[in-house]
Amino acid sequence: MNLNDKLFAIVGDSERVSINKTILEQHSKGEAYHTPSCPDAVVFPKSKEEIGRIVQFASEHSIPLVPYGAGTSLEGHIIPVHGGISLNFSLMNQILSIRPDDFQVTVQPGVTRNQLNQALKEHGLFFSTDPGADASIGGMAATNASGTNSVKYGVMRDQVLGLEVVLADGSIVRTGGHSFKSSAGYNLTGLLIGSEGTLGIFTEITLKLRGIPEAVSAVKAVFPSIEAAGNAAAILLKAGLAIGKIELVDEKTIQAVNRFKTTDYREEPTLFLEFSGNEPEVTYSVEVMEEILKDEQCVSFEFENDSLRRAQLWEARHHAAFAIQAANPGKVLMFTDVCVPLSQLAGALKQTREVIERYGLEGAVLGHVGDGNYHACLPIDPNSEEELEVVEAVHHQIVSYALSKGGTCTGEHGIGLGKKAFLQEEHGDIIPIMKIIKNNLDPKNILNPGKIF
Amino acid sequence: MNLNDKLFAIVGDSERVSINKTILEQHSKGEAYHTPSCPDAVVFPKSKEEIGRIVQFASEHSIPLVPYGAGTSLEGHIIPVHGGISLNFSLMNQILSIRPDDFQVTVQPGVTRNQLNQALKEHGLFFSTDPGADASIGGMAATNASGTNSVKYGVMRDQVLGLEVVLADGSIVRTGGHSFKSSAGYNLTGLLIGSEGTLGIFTEITLKLRGIPEAVSAVKAVFPSIEAAGNAAAILLKAGLAIGKIELVDEKTIQAVNRFKTTDYREEPTLFLEFSGNEPEVTYSVEVMEEILKDEQCVSFEFENDSLRRAQLWEARHHAAFAIQAANPGKVLMFTDVCVPLSQLAGALKQTREVIERYGLEGAVLGHVGDGNYHACLPIDPNSEEELEVVEAVHHQIVSYALSKGGTCTGEHGIGLGKKAFLQEEHGDIIPIMKIIKNNLDPKNILNPGKIF
Repeated sequence: MNLNDKLFAIVGDSERVSINKTILEQHSKGEAYHTPSCPDAVVFPKSKEEIGRIVQFASEHSIPLVPYGAGTSLEGHIIPVHGGISLNFSLMNQILSIRPDDFQVTVQPGVTRNQLNQALKEHGLFFSTDPGADASIGGMAATNASGTNSVKYGVMRDQVLGLEVVLADGSIVRTGGHSFKSSAGYNLTGLLIGSEGTLGIFTEITLKLRGIPEAVSAVKAVFPSIEAAGNAAAILLKAGLAIGKIELVDEKTIQAVNRFKTTDYREEPTLFLEFSGNEPEVTYSVEVMEEILKDEQCVSFEFENDSLRRAQLWEARHHAAFAIQAANPGKVLMFTDVCVPLSQLAGALKQTREVIERYGLEGAVLGHVGDGNYHACLPIDPNSEEELEVVEAVHHQIVSYALSKGGTCTGEHGIGLGKKAFLQEEHGDIIPIMKIIKNNLDPKNILNPGKIF
Repeated sequence: MNLNDKLFAIVGDSERVSINKTILEQHSKGEAYHTPSCPDAVVFPKSKEEIGRIVQFASEHSIPLVPYGAGTSLEGHIIPVHGGISLNFSLMNQILSIRPDDFQVTVQPGVTRNQLNQALKEHGLFFSTDPGADASIGGMAATNASGTNSVKYGVMRDQVLGLEVVLADGSIVRTGGHSFKSSAGYNLTGLLIGSEGTLGIFTEITLKLRGIPEAVSAVKAVFPSIEAAGNAAAILLKAGLAIGKIELVDEKTIQAVNRFKTTDYREEPTLFLEFSGNEPEVTYSVEVMEEILKDEQCVSFEFENDSLRRAQLWEARHHAAFAIQAANPGKVLMFTDVCVPLSQLAGALKQTREVIERYGLEGAVLGHVGDGNYHACLPIDPNSEEELEVVEAVHHQIVSYALSKGGTCTGEHGIGLGKKAFLQEEHGDIIPIMKIIKNNLDPKNILNPGKIF
């Protein structure tokens, strides 16, 4: 019996198992530069029990299993580098229970961020983690994603109260629960979040929710240099304001956005700010911000208080990567993802810009500077070894600088395929501990093999 | 050579090794009801290198090692149930570096909470986790402590950016770093926080800091019943206010506090609230709160805006446990520590009060209800088997109720000695995973043996 037939025997539905070439190719790549690699089959499971049986089968035959959510990974997490089975979660996309009085929701991993927020709106609640892409909750949990809102609400790991997980032997367990805090034994929820599918397969995720803020005010502030913008960001963060988002985009990104979205934003380094909370604190925050910006070389700023215009503004920011891709036809994107202490932010942004220019690359710089996290977005020709080498050299210099300042090689994208050498540089002394955990929880190395290590 | 001489040979300072009976007895107990047990020796290490050598020695001879911070544990974490060496961290109490621009500080584990906040004041910063007791930062990290401020700032695990840790083989490693977020490999920092000294010994801890709020307003609101108070708390939490603290104490606790502190607080269930932030949001929050309290059966409320009066108010709350102890001479205290989803809070408080009364106990109920976390504080005669059995039965009923509502047996005190059976009840399916991690990271079981499992 071939793999297709065996999987069909497990799920009992030929529509939910595929070895079709187009389907395999769809599951061979993420949204970034990594070399694609096809799975041997794709399964669309519908329940934890089915996943349990698939894992048991894969364990018996030492077949790799690679979870696939919305396909928006930027570090190759979903690429089946050793073949095997892609588990596509698009049919496990149910919102299982909304508990508005408890500020929490339980979802299947295939639920996407926008789908969830749509369903929460009528309760006056929202799910705060926003990586830009309409990612799946499972994928966001697997990479410890964050994004624009984390300066106010924290990262994915801060939102997950509990998990249901299929382990490498096919058994199904639960971590965490429904209380907002717990000191009951080892924090396995927090260990699984960010484990990139290498320790277990999530089948249910319970998330903390937030009340939709009563008042929101968005501001676009233009600066003469990327460092000036970085400095202003650091000062705003210290002022005790109701900061909801604080995003930086450089002039190259604004140029690309203007072309892609036919907007006419001023093409200079820009902070996109959002204040949110109750009415009085937002009003006060905006007043204080005006004073600070005046002292911090801000060239101009404008408000977007209208919700439609504000949505357009954030859409422009969210589509920055697409804009850069569109400006470079035929190229693929490579993203750096360093995060540094706030006092090091302006210097790190300057170094990043200098390195990109020294190597003559067409890179854009943008990011969540409220956390000290930003991305260089570098278009490369996937067929050029030479270009890849240059980009890797640039990436290495950006990461080395960040590490020398106490930073990390990845603030939110994860290690995946592209940052394994950097993990060694950053945490070489504790990789043995990580491997002890991995080898003991997944002795046959069937869970997303080749990632992280 | 006896243990004392061997330890003296390692640390080279006879003043820092003790087998004096009084010293051993000081290290035999925490602040709660658990049966004391003396270590064989106490060492006062001064450096990670010294701890590394002590751990190597302990490993070679399979001698238990029990870290001891400020001695304020409520679950017997610091009791050397199998003898061995107590590591007293009082000489490792240096604040190593304050980085105000990065909102962080690196400390040795023996630094206490009040010591740290004293040093941070001049920078306009503070460390947010406040369990009441002047605990050591090392102990707070080991138990994932939280307390009054966690409703606003999160628990201990949310504050720790990085650790330096001595492992069971004596090697010294670092987890995390100085950036506010990271997705670089498995979250070992989060795994070690709350591991109660069973996976490694902390030697440096890097903490996130917060700006001291510009405005603070405290309120004491009295209710006709503990459920009414719980309901009001849940409604206040939903209103998007600048809540800093939201504590509940029942009438028995107020009675004890009045006697202990010679205060004259009205002896009824009371919410102690604090609003903090910038001036406009605090003013607004207080206004909204007044409206809400009027609708929620609040009998009376009074403000404490003067900082001295406010300090007295919180001191009264913090000394509640001492007050109950003082009201019951000759008894020791047992604390329950359940945490439930917010919607279950009023019901859980009611059940707890009923169970205590059904068994005829003299218990008080108080806690951090903004997180759904509260404590029944039960005085018992440590020499009465019978009393202990009754208290255990009450504890079991309180925990079972909380678990049946999706809660946890411990919100902030940890499992330690007293809640091992409840951990089995709550997380029996994942204890094997916890044990895999424990057994592989500490194969000789020398790190705080007998705790958690």
